[in-house]
This record gives sequence, structure tokens and C-alpha cells, in this order.
Amino acid sequence: MNDRASNTHHVIGVDMGGTKILAALVDRSGKILAREKKRVEEHSVKAILGSVVEGVKAVCQQAGVKPDQVGGIGIGAPGTLDFERGAVLFAPNIHWRNVPLRALLEKEVGIKTFVDNDVNIGTLGEHTYGVGKGTQDAVGMFIGTGIGGGIILGGKLFYGFNKTAGEIGHMVLESGGPKCGCGNRGCLEALASRSAIARRIWRAIKKGKKTVVAGLVKKEQEIVSGVLAEAVRKRDRITIKSLEKAARYIGIAIGSLINVINPEMFILGGGVMEALGPMMLPLIRECARRNTFPQCFRGIKICAARLGDDAGVLGGAALAWERLKT
Amino acid sequence: MNDRASNTHHVIGVDMGGTKILAALVDRSGKILAREKKRVEEHSVKAILGSVVEGVKAVCQQAGVKPDQVGGIGIGAPGTLDFERGAVLFAPNIHWRNVPLRALLEKEVGIKTFVDNDVNIGTLGEHTYGVGKGTQDAVGMFIGTGIGGGIILGGKLFYGFNKTAGEIGHMVLESGGPKCGCGNRGCLEALASRSAIARRIWRAIKKGKKTVVAGLVKKEQEIVSGVLAEAVRKRDRITIKSLEKAARYIGIAIGSLINVINPEMFILGGGVMEALGPMMLPLIRECARRNTFPQCFRGIKICAARLGDDAGVLGGAALAWERLKT
Repeated sequence: MNDRASNTHHVIGVDMGGTKILAALVDRSGKILAREKKRVEEHSVKAILGSVVEGVKAVCQQAGVKPDQVGGIGIGAPGTLDFERGAVLFAPNIHWRNVPLRALLEKEVGIKTFVDNDVNIGTLGEHTYGVGKGTQDAVGMFIGTGIGGGIILGGKLFYGFNKTAGEIGHMVLESGGPKCGCGNRGCLEALASRSAIARRIWRAIKKGKKTVVAGLVKKEQEIVSGVLAEAVRKRDRITIKSLEKAARYIGIAIGSLINVINPEMFILGGGVMEALGPMMLPLIRECARRNTFPQCFRGIKICAARLGDDAGVLGGAALAWERLKT
Repeated sequence: MNDRASNTHHVIGVDMGGTKILAALVDRSGKILAREKKRVEEHSVKAILGSVVEGVKAVCQQAGVKPDQVGGIGIGAPGTLDFERGAVLFAPNIHWRNVPLRALLEKEVGIKTFVDNDVNIGTLGEHTYGVGKGTQDAVGMFIGTGIGGGIILGGKLFYGFNKTAGEIGHMVLESGGPKCGCGNRGCLEALASRSAIARRIWRAIKKGKKTVVAGLVKKEQEIVSGVLAEAVRKRDRITIKSLEKAARYIGIAIGSLINVINPEMFILGGGVMEALGPMMLPLIRECARRNTFPQCFRGIKICAARLGDDAGVLGGAALAWERLKT
């Protein structure tokens, strides 16, 4: 394995998701020199790892860089991790249990590998190369099917005692409120994720309320961000009301986090934000403001993520650069 | 003014409250060599500052130490602060506005002075010399008339962008819930502070419910921690129910903080905890556990503060030692 960390000019960032794998060869300034996308057809370790290896090799080939010239790989994985071993302990959406990802990948490609979870990596990408560039303390929130988060303090990812910090989706905002996937009630995720928004709209449809969504989907799971955006364009009242409700809860959560952590910036990404950010952000900001003291709120920025799909690969690259330094 | 920071053996910690002022001469190990307590009779700047100066002089005299042998004073003040100037911007409970505390005190006693807010100072005291000794990341929660908090990250007080981090009492746990003193609704403080507990009991009394508290007080404001403890000793159902409700909300807030920040320890102090900690702590812990994932909760300690009234003066001393180092 190579250990030319200090004089390398390239690292590779990998975003390992349940539907696709993205890999990119990145230089020190965050410039993407080559990129590759692989569809994930099945969730076995062999299939996904195979696609990651292909992605890594493809970006090297495209850029004319040999694997032994690459300083490291930073990879964002879903689920809970064992950070010591760089292993995926449990990732329900790809059905992985106890997979020693770092060891397997290092063996396959011979490049030093660093593993972190996908939301930490997304936050790090936006902080290092995106909208959060230059901030000391920032909180990333990714609003999609669920709600995940990452925390940057003093310019670095913050992990906490059990290395699980950032579970922003499971702040309780309404004790005794709607049931959350985690088994608890009233979590932010149960109130403001895409699934929560879809659930409210689906319930309205079942009650016979008039909404254009009824004509766009056949079941609740089909109410994805694109459908929501389409319904908003058609000024669908039920959809707009449900999104406004979600925005208010996100604002309340941000308000609480401003009161407690007081970070310089909130970076909002994920499918819902990408599709509906311009509509939701003003309301999110207003609710956050209303839930804080003026002296706490002053100057704090609540921004849309800027890197889109590149947040993962650039975050992976940022992780690799960061770890290679130390 | 002295600047023998590096070879001094003494600092003074001051806890400046609305009812009393505590001062203590403290050595590097956190040993209190002399202490003084002054009752606060009126809230003018002159009166309170006068008592602080008397306290500082008294502890020096008691220990036979000259003021110019003292390395610094660390003082915890109520209200919002201007950290740059060491000034109290607004402290409603002592009716102070824009008082340049550091400058005034340095002029009066000729000792370098460091000002922070009382809950940060209490948290720092418990972290440096009390139950939190040796932890890297800890959260202090002080439950009294209101609920205040302080955050230690990487062994140091964490301030955030506007230097207002730690406003744990204003996390929203029940959006649309009971009105809080801050103007918002459903804050932890509106659900679990001594005032919130008293309000619930008083409402029960007004409704004609049977409770021993009715015989102990004449108005809601008299339901202080001592009265609550007395009612619990008499197994008063209404009081116990209200305290259990508060404990559950505190547990939910801690659970959310475990999910988001994942600190190693929570340190619970303040009047309510001092009087009722043994009764409330098991329920607080249980609710915190139920509101987190097992892998997030593992090993995290939820403890009663240990220093009581000394947390403030020892925290002030810790602040002075810390700042003199740098």
C-alpha cells in the first residue's frame, strides 16, 4: 500500500448509496478531475464493493493517474459504523451487517481508505468546498426520506462520546407526537422528513380531500420530492400546507440548536431541500428566528447546500485530505 | 495591576447572585483556602459591587494573602454579557443594564478579572473540580426558577458564534405547549423548571384538588424547592406527579442532546436538583434512555452536581486559572 501522503496530488471520494455509487478523483483544491457513477442493482457486499472498486479504477484511468499515485480514499457509507475498524455495523437500506469496508477496499485497490457515515461526509463536503467554506462551527441537515445531520466544530467533524453525534432527526420537538421510525414519538424526522410530509398528504387523500397528488401517485411511497415540487407548481393547497408544516418544524429544530450550540451556519441539503428549498427556506428562517433570542440569532446563516450530488464525493475527498495530514 | 500569572499560587472565584455574593480564595488544586458570603440587600451597581469588593478583600485577609499576590479573579454574573468588555449587558433579576463589571472591579481591587455567565461558571466548576472531573465533553444543566446550561467541549467551555451557547432551557420539546418566559411556547424551561412545577401544583390547588402544598404556602411563588421536598416527604400525590412530569421532560431534553451532541456526561444542578435529585434522577435517566438509540446512550453518565454552593466560586477560580495560562 502506498504511503506517499505528504506529496500526493490526488485523493478519491466515494459516495456509497443504496441506489448509486459515485466516485471522483479530486485534487487538493477540491477540483473534480474525473468522476464515475454506477447504478446499484443488488445490495450484496460483493456487488456493491465491486461497483466501488470499478468506480475507483475508472476515475484513475480517466485522469491517467495510477492507483499508487492516489493518497487515499474517503468513503461515505450509510448506517452505523465501527470507526476503529472502518466497518459498517448495520445499514438497513442496503442490508449490510458487520462489513469490514475499509479492510476489504484496501485489499482490493491498495489505497489507504477512510470510512465515515454519509451525512458526516456530506456535511464535511459542504463545509470544505461548498456553502460552508470558511466557517468554524456548522451544522449540516439532510432532509430526505429521513433526516440526518453532521456537526462541524472548530473546523472539524465532531463525533461525541460514542461517535454518534449529529442525529438531528431524532431531536424530540413534540413529545407524544407522531410515531418515528426509531420507535420514539415526536422526533423531527417524524414531523418534517419526506416520509412525514407524504404521510400527511396521503392521509388527506384517504379522507377524500382534493389534491393534485391523488392523480400523480398510486401509493404513499410514490410521493417523492419531484412529485411534491410538481404539486407546488400546480399550487396544490394540501401539499403546500404539509410542506409549510415541515418547514416550521425544521425551523423550530434549528431554533433549539441555535439556543444550545449556536453554530455559525446551518447547511440544508437532501432531496426535499433540493426540490423545494426556495419555497421552504424563508419559512424555516422565520421560524428559527421566532424560536431564539435576538442576541443568539444575530448573524447566523441558514443556507441551502450548494454541491448537490457532489457533496458526498467532495466530502470523501475532504476526509481523505484531512486524515492524510495527521 | 499584577501580572505575575505564571508564578501565582492563588486566584479568587466570585459567584454574584441576586440574593447573595460568595467569594473564595482558591489554590491551583481547587482547594478553598478562605471563603466569604455577603447577603445582597439592594440591587444597585454600587451596593453589589461594594459587596464583591468586600468579599475579595475579606478572603485575602482571612488567608493572609495580599491582593497583589492574587493572580486573578473569575466572576460568574447573571444575565447576558459582552464578553469582549467583561460587561453585564442586561441582568433582569438584579436590574443591571450595561455595567462594565470587569473594568469596575479591576479598578477597585487591582486584580485582573475574568467575567462569564453564572451557568457557564457553574458548569466549569463541576467540570474542573466536581463530578465532571476528567471528562472531555460535558453538559451542565441547572434547574431552578429557570433552566440554564453550559457546554464543555474538548475540556473547555464552548461559546458558539454569538457566545450564547448553552441555552438549554429554551430547547422546544412541545411546540405549541405552555408559554415560556422567553415569549416562546413549549420550551424545556416552561415544562420542567421550578416555576413550571409550581404552576402545575398551583393550578391543581385552584381546581380544589387535595394537596399538602395548599397548607404550606399562600401563593404560587412560595412553592420553592424546600416546599416541594417537604410535600414529597409527605407523599403528596399532586407534587410527585408534577415532579415526575418535569423529570420526564428533562429526560427527553437530555435524550435529544445525546442524539445531537453525544457528550460524555450531563451534570444536573440547581435548587430543584439539590432538593429532589435522588427522587428525580432515576426517572430522568430512564426517559433519556428511552429517547435515544442504544449505541448513542451507551456509557453516557447523567449525574447530580456535587459542589453545591461551591460550584460558582470554584468555577470562577477555574476560569481564572484557565485564562491566566493563555
